[in-house]
Amino acid sequence: MASERRYAVLAHNELGTFHAKTAHGVMAYGVSPTVVVIDRAHAGHSVREIVPHLQCDAPIVASFAEAKQFGPTALLIGIAPSGGVLPPDWRAEIVQALESGLEIVNGLHLTFRDDDEFNAAARRGGGSIWDVREPPASIPLFSGAAWEVPAHVLLTVGSDCAVGKMTVSLELARAARDAKRNVAFVPTGQTGIMIAGWGIAIDRVISDFAAGAAEQLVLTAARDHDLLIVEGQGSINHPAYAPVTLGLLYGSAPDALLLVHDLSRTEAVGFPTPVLSYSELIRIYELLCSTVKPARVVGIALNTSSLSPDDAQKAINDAIFETGLPCDDVVRNQPHNLWRAIAPVLTQKTRPVRAKARVPSS
Amino acid sequence: MASERRYAVLAHNELGTFHAKTAHGVMAYGVSPTVVVIDRAHAGHSVREIVPHLQCDAPIVASFAEAKQFGPTALLIGIAPSGGVLPPDWRAEIVQALESGLEIVNGLHLTFRDDDEFNAAARRGGGSIWDVREPPASIPLFSGAAWEVPAHVLLTVGSDCAVGKMTVSLELARAARDAKRNVAFVPTGQTGIMIAGWGIAIDRVISDFAAGAAEQLVLTAARDHDLLIVEGQGSINHPAYAPVTLGLLYGSAPDALLLVHDLSRTEAVGFPTPVLSYSELIRIYELLCSTVKPARVVGIALNTSSLSPDDAQKAINDAIFETGLPCDDVVRNQPHNLWRAIAPVLTQKTRPVRAKARVPSS
Repeated sequence: MASERRYAVLAHNELGTFHAKTAHGVMAYGVSPTVVVIDRAHAGHSVREIVPHLQCDAPIVASFAEAKQFGPTALLIGIAPSGGVLPPDWRAEIVQALESGLEIVNGLHLTFRDDDEFNAAARRGGGSIWDVREPPASIPLFSGAAWEVPAHVLLTVGSDCAVGKMTVSLELARAARDAKRNVAFVPTGQTGIMIAGWGIAIDRVISDFAAGAAEQLVLTAARDHDLLIVEGQGSINHPAYAPVTLGLLYGSAPDALLLVHDLSRTEAVGFPTPVLSYSELIRIYELLCSTVKPARVVGIALNTSSLSPDDAQKAINDAIFETGLPCDDVVRNQPHNLWRAIAPVLTQKTRPVRAKARVPSS
Repeated sequence: MASERRYAVLAHNELGTFHAKTAHGVMAYGVSPTVVVIDRAHAGHSVREIVPHLQCDAPIVASFAEAKQFGPTALLIGIAPSGGVLPPDWRAEIVQALESGLEIVNGLHLTFRDDDEFNAAARRGGGSIWDVREPPASIPLFSGAAWEVPAHVLLTVGSDCAVGKMTVSLELARAARDAKRNVAFVPTGQTGIMIAGWGIAIDRVISDFAAGAAEQLVLTAARDHDLLIVEGQGSINHPAYAPVTLGLLYGSAPDALLLVHDLSRTEAVGFPTPVLSYSELIRIYELLCSTVKPARVVGIALNTSSLSPDDAQKAINDAIFETGLPCDDVVRNQPHNLWRAIAPVLTQKTRPVRAKARVPSS
């Protein structure tokens, strides 16, 4: 499941910006080390000098040719080209990496496996291509096997998309590891997949198989872990993305849910649809789970990055008062307090609901 | 939107059996006439002699060569080969049809467009291939445009998959046409698509775009109709298919819902998951709609084919008593009574929920 990659991260001109957030995520949370970054605008510095919070001392070089000396096994495309078209110089460096036998880890919408030049370079040099967003060719329908895993499954569910479900999942997994739990972060979107080195982008799976894909991830992670923290997607009332949310809610067969909300969000990304209150969200998520396999919301993780320290604490207190549940901002305040509050319930399994034998009507 | 096809239906040996249910659906409800059926076991008869309820006088012949004289424009694959592999004689007749310039209408899982022999025959003769299950190459994300159509949208929602949502939708559309409403049946699964001659199999759409696909269907049908009856899929608590259900629930932007249930069903197809009660189903469907664009359940259509006439009437009365809603079996009792009961509300549009401007906190 976990990979043994050593990353060269391609991030020309953008390492310090928001556009490199995939690269930042991989450096902050990735299971595979970043040994060198390729960014001609920041060559000669270390990552830490450009992005202090990453605590990463990898050198920055100007080209793939210079990066090779650091022994990378994979080239990770750490930023997205503007306009969606690969610049010619990126293309040349990707070809060089493939010719040098490296694996290309690509989270872009562009499918590198469909590119004749890349395929030819891979054949020449023994390199390979991993298009992270492309689901496996054959995903089975949901079967119910995920109901039977002995591992406890915690799923993060959101008030909207892009509120911080992945970060919360990763931070809680860190706290669980610190507490000596045998925990797996289960990635369901492209950044999470690049961080963990495995996973399926559920939003790219054919809708009939979305729940089946989530189930496969749980079955895989449950082989050698006894606590799974599944990265959620979207929100149950997002007009476009809710089907993905529901595929995860049923397919990952959670025993417990953790609600994630960003205090700056009042409507769904891209739509006038209102973000629901904590109690409305809890009611809907728990109601849906109660029809297939019960799971309760056991805590709330808030993204308070838009608020002052005082307002953040007030927002946390408000959420506790409204719901009676443990609540914290796991980035601002570290994940350990929230972890300790919810850990005691993250051992109990719930059972799927089963139809009772019907009494024949007259 | 509606096609001008004249069908030859390929149904070797199986016209009279359950395996020809797609062919039966097309002949019972299709907008395009069936001019000839190819079935070597029943050649020399008319369809009506083999399947009396279809009221179709098309002749049955033994081969495509004989079928040509009836002037078909399309060959519809009306049955599925056992084991999923096309028998050699079917393959030969499909090739002949393509060489004769016909369109092949294929609802099988097999993708004919990927078949070299079929493609070559199409090039030779000017024929074409429509793989009904294959969604269009480019489906946009849900945009909210479906919220703005002037047409009233009624969506059928189910207690499970395969309870009769398509049939109910078609029967109600028939009653609406009889009542001079300008109504469109909006197909979302392969049989419905073959009947109507257009549509998208939502279960085959990538999950991020399921709601967008449903929206496109509504936008298309709303161009020249003022009542749309959208064929629903699955059930909101089906462990595997619920994401498709939710994509339709948000994507088709219904103003009203019609609940469909089969009285013989106590658990979800393939799972021990219980079928919910009418009131539970109504509560969940209406609750979800209330978070994006409100829609109420305005009636219930029951499939009572497993029951005696007395038990069927009792089941209908029970549903009315439990819910206070109009209820009927639109096959057993014809659709006109249920239509008359719900028609008055099938004119009112609902508006999407919009977030209120937030009062800045402190």
